[in-house]
Amino acid sequence: MPPILITVGEPAGIGPDCVLLAWATAPESLRDCCICAPIAWLEERACQLGLDVRLGAVEKPEASTDTLNCWNPLSQDAKTGPVCCGTTSAHTASAVVACIRAAALACIQKKAAAIVTGPIEKAVLRDSGFGFPGHTEFLAHLAGDVPFVMMLASENLRVALLTTHLALADVPAELSVSETLQCLRIVHDDLQTRFSIAVPRIGLCGLNPHAGEAGHFGHEEIDVLAPAVAQARDEGINVHGPLPADTLFSPPMRLEFDAVVCCYHDQGLIPIKALSFGEAVNITLGLPFIRTSVDHGTALDRAGGGKISYSSLIAAIQCARAMHAAHVNQIPERIAKESQCI
Amino acid sequence: MPPILITVGEPAGIGPDCVLLAWATAPESLRDCCICAPIAWLEERACQLGLDVRLGAVEKPEASTDTLNCWNPLSQDAKTGPVCCGTTSAHTASAVVACIRAAALACIQKKAAAIVTGPIEKAVLRDSGFGFPGHTEFLAHLAGDVPFVMMLASENLRVALLTTHLALADVPAELSVSETLQCLRIVHDDLQTRFSIAVPRIGLCGLNPHAGEAGHFGHEEIDVLAPAVAQARDEGINVHGPLPADTLFSPPMRLEFDAVVCCYHDQGLIPIKALSFGEAVNITLGLPFIRTSVDHGTALDRAGGGKISYSSLIAAIQCARAMHAAHVNQIPERIAKESQCI
Repeated sequence: MPPILITVGEPAGIGPDCVLLAWATAPESLRDCCICAPIAWLEERACQLGLDVRLGAVEKPEASTDTLNCWNPLSQDAKTGPVCCGTTSAHTASAVVACIRAAALACIQKKAAAIVTGPIEKAVLRDSGFGFPGHTEFLAHLAGDVPFVMMLASENLRVALLTTHLALADVPAELSVSETLQCLRIVHDDLQTRFSIAVPRIGLCGLNPHAGEAGHFGHEEIDVLAPAVAQARDEGINVHGPLPADTLFSPPMRLEFDAVVCCYHDQGLIPIKALSFGEAVNITLGLPFIRTSVDHGTALDRAGGGKISYSSLIAAIQCARAMHAAHVNQIPERIAKESQCI
Repeated sequence: MPPILITVGEPAGIGPDCVLLAWATAPESLRDCCICAPIAWLEERACQLGLDVRLGAVEKPEASTDTLNCWNPLSQDAKTGPVCCGTTSAHTASAVVACIRAAALACIQKKAAAIVTGPIEKAVLRDSGFGFPGHTEFLAHLAGDVPFVMMLASENLRVALLTTHLALADVPAELSVSETLQCLRIVHDDLQTRFSIAVPRIGLCGLNPHAGEAGHFGHEEIDVLAPAVAQARDEGINVHGPLPADTLFSPPMRLEFDAVVCCYHDQGLIPIKALSFGEAVNITLGLPFIRTSVDHGTALDRAGGGKISYSSLIAAIQCARAMHAAHVNQIPERIAKESQCI
């Protein structure tokens, strides 16, 4: 198995801390991982944290059980300048982006098994000319502008989103039969190939209270969601809905589904954070490679302090590892199909 | 203490079953309750369920530990016709409404300590000329068209709603500084007087993902919610927000608040049903009397079958009892103030 590549995201945040603390206290959890970053970012932070960590510089993605390996994809001449804990800098922004790009390309070229991303500081990247709302859109672009779906997954619940970072007022107009259908196809397909679920059971939330109560409170269920479900079911996708979201996440019903597709950000994020806080992994479905992410931000004020939890990083790595294991056991046609996309 | 009045709601649904099964198996839980309904509705259902229940007909709200008392507020001549399990009828609709009205008036006149409402079939009442969306609006009307707030409460969480049964597309325009402020005042006031919380801690959810991220995804936080919070805090209300809703319901943060005020139905109903399914009680705040309700529907298909849970009824009664106990211990000025409203 090629290594799992970890990008640390914003170097002034807790991304480097998470990796270093995990290696220092639970090295086994990083046994098949390689960090994609300038080694200096980790050396300096290890020193600041008072951690005696054996780092290894490698020329290509490569894991080791003896050293925490760093693969620096930047050219020798690239100067990113010093990193000061808690203070973002325009100097490091392009290096942050270059690391993510290099890690994704390594995945596409099968030199890495997956990419696990640490938290970025979006405003800093935006100010430096990064033209994407976040990681996910950038990765989808690198993969050839493929359609994608944001999923949050924990042990007990998986939620996928029809819309993501959008004002609530804009959500109803954004819903369409074609995009809903596309999302259902991606979720169905990836639950099969990345999670080894032969016949995925998918629940779709209504947009409105009580899923509109037969058009009494909104028509999106009738006009958009139900037609998409009908078409998806015709294609053999085992999807039910649109169902009232509050009932769907109640204990009796949520166990009936392998994933719940939600109309908007908070509809999915509220229940998964309420039920699985600190254990949820952010996964991008639809990409021709495996990508998971921590579910926390940069926590700039806590970088270098040592008092953080790296449990989300571990969860993201474990999830990527399991998805890779499921994937390599899949039918060859799927892999062939994916290869054509690249 | 005057009795707690229970209205059974739609007689063809499981409202009567819940009361009868609770009395048959846990009579202590109804020790201070009186049913507000024609006694025939309960006699027939008890027979159908094969329950040997001693019913008592009383002339005014009155509880007994020997008999399950029924107070029929309808005139002697009123004929509601037979009730057939599972089949709603226009004949009973006016009796259903009359019972709710009588129970509410008894509360206003201090002849009852609280009203606990069973589930109604809204469409049936609507077709019979009932001009209110539901119980809550009708009760607020009887109390003199007072402003009210819908709250769902369980052992671990209380959520209050700024808007209720409204299409999601209509929610953003419905939010206003004045209504948000009014809701915060009602929640604050009722947490003090009905729940004995001296300094209630209230959290307010943002409308948009990440509470709009400083205007990046929507402006309602900046234009409406934050100004309402500022004004409420000036009035001495301990409210925080608007906060990202997904973070607010995560375990570390939700414990910091006695109640969370939500912008729309699913924002509050999703987390409370996910975390406290079957234990949540629906409470109407702002009324000059105590009103709680079961959190389930009429379940017409299960009426008369015996296979139902009455746990929500018990929770609603316990909640009403606790609210009454808190209330009678309050400062007399408050009661005087309330009396003026009637």
